[in-house]
Amino acid sequence: MADFLTKQSQDYSQWYNDLVIKAGLAENSAVRGCMVIKPYGYSIWEKVQAQLDKMFKETGHQNAYFPLFIPKSFFSREAEHVKGFAKECAVVTHYRLKNSEDGNAVVVDPEAKLEEELIVRPTSETIIWNTYKNWIQSWRDLPILVNQWANVVRWEMRTRLFLRTAEFLWQEGHTAHATKEEALEEAQKMLGVYADFVENYMAIPVLKGVKTPTERFAGALETYCIEALMQDGKALQAGTSHFLGQNFAKAFDVKFLNKEGKQETVWATSWGVSTRLMGALIMTHSDDNGLVLPPKLAPIHVVIIPIFKKQEEYENVCQKAEQIASQLRAKGYTVKFDNSDNQKPGWKFAQYELQGVPVRLAIGPRDVQNNTVEVFRRDTMEKTSVSIDGIDNYIADLMDKIQANIFQKALKFRSEHSYKTDNYEEFKQLLDKGGFVYAPWDGTAETEARIKEETKATIRCIPLDQPDEPGVDMLTGKPSTKRVVFARAY
Amino acid sequence: MADFLTKQSQDYSQWYNDLVIKAGLAENSAVRGCMVIKPYGYSIWEKVQAQLDKMFKETGHQNAYFPLFIPKSFFSREAEHVKGFAKECAVVTHYRLKNSEDGNAVVVDPEAKLEEELIVRPTSETIIWNTYKNWIQSWRDLPILVNQWANVVRWEMRTRLFLRTAEFLWQEGHTAHATKEEALEEAQKMLGVYADFVENYMAIPVLKGVKTPTERFAGALETYCIEALMQDGKALQAGTSHFLGQNFAKAFDVKFLNKEGKQETVWATSWGVSTRLMGALIMTHSDDNGLVLPPKLAPIHVVIIPIFKKQEEYENVCQKAEQIASQLRAKGYTVKFDNSDNQKPGWKFAQYELQGVPVRLAIGPRDVQNNTVEVFRRDTMEKTSVSIDGIDNYIADLMDKIQANIFQKALKFRSEHSYKTDNYEEFKQLLDKGGFVYAPWDGTAETEARIKEETKATIRCIPLDQPDEPGVDMLTGKPSTKRVVFARAY
Repeated sequence: MADFLTKQSQDYSQWYNDLVIKAGLAENSAVRGCMVIKPYGYSIWEKVQAQLDKMFKETGHQNAYFPLFIPKSFFSREAEHVKGFAKECAVVTHYRLKNSEDGNAVVVDPEAKLEEELIVRPTSETIIWNTYKNWIQSWRDLPILVNQWANVVRWEMRTRLFLRTAEFLWQEGHTAHATKEEALEEAQKMLGVYADFVENYMAIPVLKGVKTPTERFAGALETYCIEALMQDGKALQAGTSHFLGQNFAKAFDVKFLNKEGKQETVWATSWGVSTRLMGALIMTHSDDNGLVLPPKLAPIHVVIIPIFKKQEEYENVCQKAEQIASQLRAKGYTVKFDNSDNQKPGWKFAQYELQGVPVRLAIGPRDVQNNTVEVFRRDTMEKTSVSIDGIDNYIADLMDKIQANIFQKALKFRSEHSYKTDNYEEFKQLLDKGGFVYAPWDGTAETEARIKEETKATIRCIPLDQPDEPGVDMLTGKPSTKRVVFARAY
Repeated sequence: MADFLTKQSQDYSQWYNDLVIKAGLAENSAVRGCMVIKPYGYSIWEKVQAQLDKMFKETGHQNAYFPLFIPKSFFSREAEHVKGFAKECAVVTHYRLKNSEDGNAVVVDPEAKLEEELIVRPTSETIIWNTYKNWIQSWRDLPILVNQWANVVRWEMRTRLFLRTAEFLWQEGHTAHATKEEALEEAQKMLGVYADFVENYMAIPVLKGVKTPTERFAGALETYCIEALMQDGKALQAGTSHFLGQNFAKAFDVKFLNKEGKQETVWATSWGVSTRLMGALIMTHSDDNGLVLPPKLAPIHVVIIPIFKKQEEYENVCQKAEQIASQLRAKGYTVKFDNSDNQKPGWKFAQYELQGVPVRLAIGPRDVQNNTVEVFRRDTMEKTSVSIDGIDNYIADLMDKIQANIFQKALKFRSEHSYKTDNYEEFKQLLDKGGFVYAPWDGTAETEARIKEETKATIRCIPLDQPDEPGVDMLTGKPSTKRVVFARAY
């Protein structure tokens, strides 16, 4: 049925675009690089937001909101930050339009030029630390544990829906601490929250690690990250948590009086995940029939489709369907009963497979007679006939199974696509197969850059749980202390 | 205690600013006209959002997200809209910065000039209707019932926290319908949702009405509104719902095939409320001691403060306090037990009065002995000693009473400040007293403009429930069919 999607095996990238569009998740807008997140896509993002927000609050964070615009000069304050962020960004230079002379259009009013240009935030460290300066005087004002849900803009030249867009939605946590230890602990804690969420809700296994200095956030002393593996063997950075040291506090002169009455400089972290997670979700689980969604994030858990020919059959089928629907709703599931009359059941089946609804129930006159229902699970595409008695418990159990199964499937894929090598030629062959390649590295930015240039692979992370393993660098033969993870990446 | 707030009677405007800052709701940022919404203020806004979002979904709406930027030319498409919105706005002209020649700063890269300037959305009708064009082909695609939570920018010259800021947060609903009747019904339904929310959650009585043509949304055929009265006698528009007719559909060429297979033009509505509601909330209920919050929107419902001298007392008091706290939490209330040791109880009392926590419980050694607790309600500032047995039901009942009381108080204030007159001199005197003045109007824009110029009062609305009452215009002596509501307004 779903032959309107390009097959993964044929063109993975085209499959992805087809799926995002045809499942109604997002589309390109009239504004270059900016996407429209459509209602179905947004309803998944709302589930992501709600769960993350809960986890942030459970770990003591509060939400706040800071300005969309950042004065241009703020970027120059932190030397590394400006290199990373004050480049491709949207610059507001004027604050007024006026009618054109012919009256048929509007033009920018040259008299309404801003004294200092404003940058649409690509990330908010600078404006937030400029604000924190006034919030922090004493050790009693610390820690500050604040998160912001917001839109940000980075003027990307090559964009792809969800994965890389000029405007995207995200959350950015910005915390201030009295000590280095506390800030480091916070950065690591939030990495843990991200890993917990991505693995247990999105059902995506992740590697936890730290970035090499080259790949660090501009202005950070350490960038912790979670890295996921997509079905085409490319890596995707799913979230980052930065230990910022005292860089931003120094740049914006943020000090506090400690318990002993002495002035000290504040320590900082920042951490974020974005609508990019939607791309990771799609590329980890979905198939040629469409989306596969983990039950914990599915906007619709169960769709019920009536099968009938005669009006009398329809009424009996509907009655049973409504009864099952209310049982399932009582268990907390979102159920859609699709009795629309303009499409055949087969078309509906394909449509809900495309949208990744975890479970489909089909019920016809024979089912009514036998007190059964046909249960279809999206992840395995298996059908079973099940008794209607106790269907609510059956479905609850099935949802847990689906959630666990898609995680296990992704984990299996990742372990089948994780390789070790000490040999550069083999390394290149493995990269072509796709996956994570664990290899020794001499720790220099030069070697990292040369490998990137020659193979397009980057060091995704230095895994946190990787044991020390003395070896020699594949390229330079210099000593290496432990393996790092290379991959081509989104 | 709270003598750090300017008194309302002394300078209402300064009282408002003091309160917003000192209660930790919001503050001005480094960017002209843009505010920082602080955690406590944002937590109230989150409650507003959560309830409205629920009500939107219950009435069949879904959320989506559209681009922050709008191509300049889109504004010229709808003749009235461009007059209203393509004026004071933030204009993005460039997409890149580069290092200055001396290397100490960043400058706008003149080579990175956009072909067409982008406007930071002041409202999204144009970009959304440009998108809907592709979503709508047949009557089966209608209605589209979509809402967006977003930030918008209107370059205001004179700004005030929450009431008028260059950037603000809001929701904007944008719906598309097959018929005029359906679109009108939607616009009215959403006005009803707003009135329900503002009266029953924010405890603010509102007048429902329609705007005069002069005061309509730019591009609307009819603007429905809810109008509230602040304590200083000035009106505040709390929400608007627009029947847009076919204006935007025509401007963006959005047509559909009806059931008979004929092409028709789509009908539209849009409706929105913003962080301005925070201003209305503050100026309806609060007093010289600080915020007064309706329990339904209070981030903290109950604060418990221990009173003690000796350590042994402290332990007994804490035990009782924790017991009460868990009882109240089990009832769904948010409870803060403030046992911090750096401030005296009196200071804490003043602080939570400032923050508008609806109920304060104070518990000391004598209370422990008598199995009582001192209950203070913020709205009336009354204290009572209450038995700890059944305290949870007592508090639940009290919350309902507070919610009802502050609404009734505001309603009483409004009726005491609502006047009727047919005489222009008396009209001017009544405006100086402050309030809603119901007066006849000849229905012309000329008279409306003259009254505005001479008295600074505008027609807030033509109330929906106002009976016809033939009369003569105060100013021109021309016939008037019914009274309209005048006031000076925020």
